[in-house]
Amino acid sequence: MMDASKYAPGYYPPKENEYRWVKKDHVEQAPIWCSVDLRDGNQALVVPMDLEEKLEFYKMLVAIGFKEIEVGFPAASETEYEFLRTLIDNDMIPEDVTIQVLTQCRDHIIRKTFEAVKGAPRAIIHFYNSTSVAQREQVFKKSKEEIKQIAIEGAKLVKKLSQEYEGNFLFEYSPESFTGTEPDYALEVCNAVLDVMQPTPDKPMIINLPVTVEMSMPHIYANQIEYCSDRLNYRDSVILSTHPHNDRGTGVADTELALLAGAQRVECCLFGNGERTGNVDAITLAMNMYTHGVDPKLDFSNMPEIVEIYERVCRMPVSDRQPYAGNLVFAAFSGSHQDAIAKGMHYREDKELHQWSVPYIPLDPHDISRTYDADVIRINSQSGKGGIGYILETAYGYTLPAKMREHFGYTVKSVSDHAHKELAPEEVLEIFEKTYLNKDIPVYVREAHFQQGPLTSAHVTALIGGKKMELTARGNGRLDAVCNALKEGLGIEFRLQTYQEHALEQGSHSRAAGYVGIEWEDRTFTWGAGTDTDIIRASIKALVSAINNGLKEEE
Amino acid sequence: MMDASKYAPGYYPPKENEYRWVKKDHVEQAPIWCSVDLRDGNQALVVPMDLEEKLEFYKMLVAIGFKEIEVGFPAASETEYEFLRTLIDNDMIPEDVTIQVLTQCRDHIIRKTFEAVKGAPRAIIHFYNSTSVAQREQVFKKSKEEIKQIAIEGAKLVKKLSQEYEGNFLFEYSPESFTGTEPDYALEVCNAVLDVMQPTPDKPMIINLPVTVEMSMPHIYANQIEYCSDRLNYRDSVILSTHPHNDRGTGVADTELALLAGAQRVECCLFGNGERTGNVDAITLAMNMYTHGVDPKLDFSNMPEIVEIYERVCRMPVSDRQPYAGNLVFAAFSGSHQDAIAKGMHYREDKELHQWSVPYIPLDPHDISRTYDADVIRINSQSGKGGIGYILETAYGYTLPAKMREHFGYTVKSVSDHAHKELAPEEVLEIFEKTYLNKDIPVYVREAHFQQGPLTSAHVTALIGGKKMELTARGNGRLDAVCNALKEGLGIEFRLQTYQEHALEQGSHSRAAGYVGIEWEDRTFTWGAGTDTDIIRASIKALVSAINNGLKEEE
Repeated sequence: MMDASKYAPGYYPPKENEYRWVKKDHVEQAPIWCSVDLRDGNQALVVPMDLEEKLEFYKMLVAIGFKEIEVGFPAASETEYEFLRTLIDNDMIPEDVTIQVLTQCRDHIIRKTFEAVKGAPRAIIHFYNSTSVAQREQVFKKSKEEIKQIAIEGAKLVKKLSQEYEGNFLFEYSPESFTGTEPDYALEVCNAVLDVMQPTPDKPMIINLPVTVEMSMPHIYANQIEYCSDRLNYRDSVILSTHPHNDRGTGVADTELALLAGAQRVECCLFGNGERTGNVDAITLAMNMYTHGVDPKLDFSNMPEIVEIYERVCRMPVSDRQPYAGNLVFAAFSGSHQDAIAKGMHYREDKELHQWSVPYIPLDPHDISRTYDADVIRINSQSGKGGIGYILETAYGYTLPAKMREHFGYTVKSVSDHAHKELAPEEVLEIFEKTYLNKDIPVYVREAHFQQGPLTSAHVTALIGGKKMELTARGNGRLDAVCNALKEGLGIEFRLQTYQEHALEQGSHSRAAGYVGIEWEDRTFTWGAGTDTDIIRASIKALVSAINNGLKEEE
Repeated sequence: MMDASKYAPGYYPPKENEYRWVKKDHVEQAPIWCSVDLRDGNQALVVPMDLEEKLEFYKMLVAIGFKEIEVGFPAASETEYEFLRTLIDNDMIPEDVTIQVLTQCRDHIIRKTFEAVKGAPRAIIHFYNSTSVAQREQVFKKSKEEIKQIAIEGAKLVKKLSQEYEGNFLFEYSPESFTGTEPDYALEVCNAVLDVMQPTPDKPMIINLPVTVEMSMPHIYANQIEYCSDRLNYRDSVILSTHPHNDRGTGVADTELALLAGAQRVECCLFGNGERTGNVDAITLAMNMYTHGVDPKLDFSNMPEIVEIYERVCRMPVSDRQPYAGNLVFAAFSGSHQDAIAKGMHYREDKELHQWSVPYIPLDPHDISRTYDADVIRINSQSGKGGIGYILETAYGYTLPAKMREHFGYTVKSVSDHAHKELAPEEVLEIFEKTYLNKDIPVYVREAHFQQGPLTSAHVTALIGGKKMELTARGNGRLDAVCNALKEGLGIEFRLQTYQEHALEQGSHSRAAGYVGIEWEDRTFTWGAGTDTDIIRASIKALVSAINNGLKEEE
């Protein structure tokens, strides 16, 4: 069914290029951002926004920091007209924000547009007509000259009406379907429009070369932009704009390379909303600059709220893998990644670094109000000891000895594997508590008293299998003495191999946590943990837990 | 909260480049495809696939046409080991498919990997270690020389074991976190590995330079690939591979530009599954080639089924705007797009074109088992007469006169706008039928008989407001005569302004459809439509419907 001979490249690379853009490393300055969410984004929704939803979205765009906002195609629909009038009549356009309205180059639509925008403090009149080979042949059935005349006539009427209507008008022209248009012809049309509009450096005009449909690889678009940027007349008086769609999944690349190649302005949508595969995503573009150390002049520090509003009013989910915004984009499930991230986070803390350089996480999740615990290291059957230990440490304060962390890692992975599900931090804690913490059956130490001498002597009151025993023994230290007493009481050989303790900072009282590893003659190594306000009692509980885990194994 | 000074570019552009790749237009040949869905994709799932699910996914990958499939990290998990053994022990690896297994450069893991892959007909042993500045400093705390030694020791052990174990082994080495590694150092490590492995043109080795974390713009990665491709030793015996992630939303661009720059092989996942923002999407890459007329050597003709399997076993939705595969990527809601598409489709039919060139739709949806009616032109309040007319025509066979299509367009848009929802084709039909078709109250024509002369004479038996009337009048033709008769009977002045009819091809019997537009002295223009097996009766019904719509308006 798939037959590649049906297709051929439908784009037109420039005849020559200097390729200056390819020698630049990255975008060094934020472009002029223009949100087209309320027009291009909205018209691509299964259920477009109603008036209330548009107003909420508009306020969010202003709060994020967009200074140019395309608010609609007011001549095309009642809702868009009404929205525009609401903004103007209720004084909802801040001084530093300019609204933009779209119109085809058709007489009655241009007239209706000026009527709709009456009284706006500032407005960009964005007029367009389609110039591609396919549209000239198939849709308009007109010659190049005739299509150019449509643009010229549109420009003349826009200019005339802008002189008749009161208001502060700016202008934008788009040769729509630019990516299917010969660059030289697009230039010819744009230059003809510029001749009509006569922009000046003081009152420049926007020329927008849209990726209406993405038809080429992104470097070809950059080449086209460089070519046109070099050949547009009135270049000092032109703001060169881009409006990339994403049919080939390279809308972000189109935009970024175009910015290197001479574009100065970007029309975009949040979360890549827009016709078909969407417009280029404003968030990805801005955050890409940000992670290169460039201030994007847009504020996404409250990403979760932005996601919530978008999903609600657009009735479109933000994908789990959407760069910077998706649920999973900071997540590491795999052991080696978790381990590297945990080490990177410790490194960052230890060195008190300002610069962010944690492996596998290109952005500090805190910058956009995301969390480390819930968003970064996530636990399932692919996870490893590093990540699992990190969760237990950062969320609950338990710092296990390295070898114990390995044992715990296998235990947790196996639970996740068998339950076939992700484990939340509280579930990881629960497994830790069930497996190691304060286990007091069959052995329980009720009291221990010590006497110091050349060796420490311990007198232990214990319950063993429900039976009270008084035990006395000596050792190198208190824990060793208790260990020897219990060995005697149980009549089994084992050796306290690892012991570690630390203060537990979490919880209402300051407590201590102890960890003990025990080597047995006749069974596998076991671990135990204990917590108590008293450091000695915490250690004894850890020892007893390790012993009980060994005894349990025998059963 | 956002503070760009926390960040700086963490990538290393090559010191020099020839930039040969930028002068190429597009990818002209399919690369070697390697699916990493079952490893990288799987390890990034909240709930990884179980054995049954992996087997189903694997069979799908084989059916699509992948010849290299990374099946897991068998030393890391029980499930991955078990899956690998199932493939081998049940002879599930076709002759032209090679499985690939991943291992870190660590002694016991390499050994376990060879053990796991025993008996496979062919296997790529993919070994890696991390080489980036951040990982050297923060995770491994080792010098460049020490990190290089890890790779060399790994290579030596892989080579040694491949000679000890029976089997047909191929090799791949990745300097993991390549994008955070200095290119000269990555080259040094890769060349040291090549010196150990001694590949030949007959038995080449894969060198994979992954975009482990996307840190730069895509042209920088292309520059790195060109630089390394020019400087790798044993270049004739090396297959240069890429494995791009998508943290900056430019994974597709990375891959495509890298292919221009010298990469020969791509590791990728379906629908861009994989760690964080995902791996590069195999489907976008393949279909991008396809729409440039290049056979991608992967078959996505059954896209809906591939989507279904993916969503079910990965428990991840395919986004509505996912290139080529999402629900909305062919959809046009807006009037001007619908109009252009409808004209393009007609143009295509009329000219019997083989080449696909319909505006706004870069791929014929039929190529991937998608439909025109349900997927392309969709109707809501943003839609226009072109699209609405197109739906009525292609789905139900009604070809309305241009002016009537305009009237119908407004009617449908208004229904969608007020109901605040998308309308399915059957709802569009329902609106057409309710608004125009065979309306017989208050006027109903029971019979009409004609006599030909210099003028046509009609004798009409009609019910008007329930009252039977016998009417006779003359006219230029039959319909004109009936019109005159009804005017007389009603005592109102109107004029038959438009009349059009055509055969209706749909339905069990061959029928005709007629459309009539009526101009009134005292009310707005009205439209009617009629259907009947008899062409005259269809026209009379259309006339009567238009009249009844006018009379209704008076009420």
